[in-house]
Amino acid sequence: MKKIDHIGIVVKSIKDALKLYNDLLGLEITGEEILEDRGLRVAFIKAGDTRIELLEPLNDNSEVSGFLAKKGEGMHHIAYEVENVEEIIKNAKKLGLKPLSDEPKNGAHNTKVVFLHPKTTNGVLVELVEHQ
Amino acid sequence: MKKIDHIGIVVKSIKDALKLYNDLLGLEITGEEILEDRGLRVAFIKAGDTRIELLEPLNDNSEVSGFLAKKGEGMHHIAYEVENVEEIIKNAKKLGLKPLSDEPKNGAHNTKVVFLHPKTTNGVLVELVEHQ
Repeated sequence: MKKIDHIGIVVKSIKDALKLYNDLLGLEITGEEILEDRGLRVAFIKAGDTRIELLEPLNDNSEVSGFLAKKGEGMHHIAYEVENVEEIIKNAKKLGLKPLSDEPKNGAHNTKVVFLHPKTTNGVLVELVEHQ
Repeated sequence: MKKIDHIGIVVKSIKDALKLYNDLLGLEITGEEILEDRGLRVAFIKAGDTRIELLEPLNDNSEVSGFLAKKGEGMHHIAYEVENVEEIIKNAKKLGLKPLSDEPKNGAHNTKVVFLHPKTTNGVLVELVEHQ
């Protein structure tokens, strides 16, 4: 493990969330994009050597709409940067931690990612990210 | 804001959680302590320039027992390191973000801390930490 790649936070409105991250803490948005297929507007905010990832739903069928309806706004996942995501998947299985897929998926910015089921990782949805 | 000071995660057992943090991710515990008055065993794990804070209840009246009963294990708060916590409290109030106390409290290792109410910070319990 190299470092925490990002912390994912579900918000109703990125604009409203900037009251905390920008106005109070003085943090800046370093990247923002619309992911139509996942129904998301995503903003990245640099914080030290890691980033806050704000996830705002574009519609009621977005990837985070279920989370928002059930739990409300809040922390969604923690992503760790790893060297080799295929190896991590193998090792996770050996340890009884459950990857949500057998093969890594393509993430944003030429990354390979996999998630671990929170029931096997102390209630935290864990993402593992390999930058290629 | 300087950086993320730590991410607080409530777990039933720090020992069990090491399967993820130590065995899979190769992270090491850098400090562990018993806080009798708060009913907690706390372990800090270095991750890049920030830390994971694992919070394990020592008994059913601990500071995290309510959270554990209601929400189960999982992410509890994010702490940001700031220069001046008194000033942050003033500015938070001006912005309509609600500090949980009017004055900073003494935290571990000679720090001054305040929390912001998650209803005013997009569902995230935010801690602000000044290292003196």
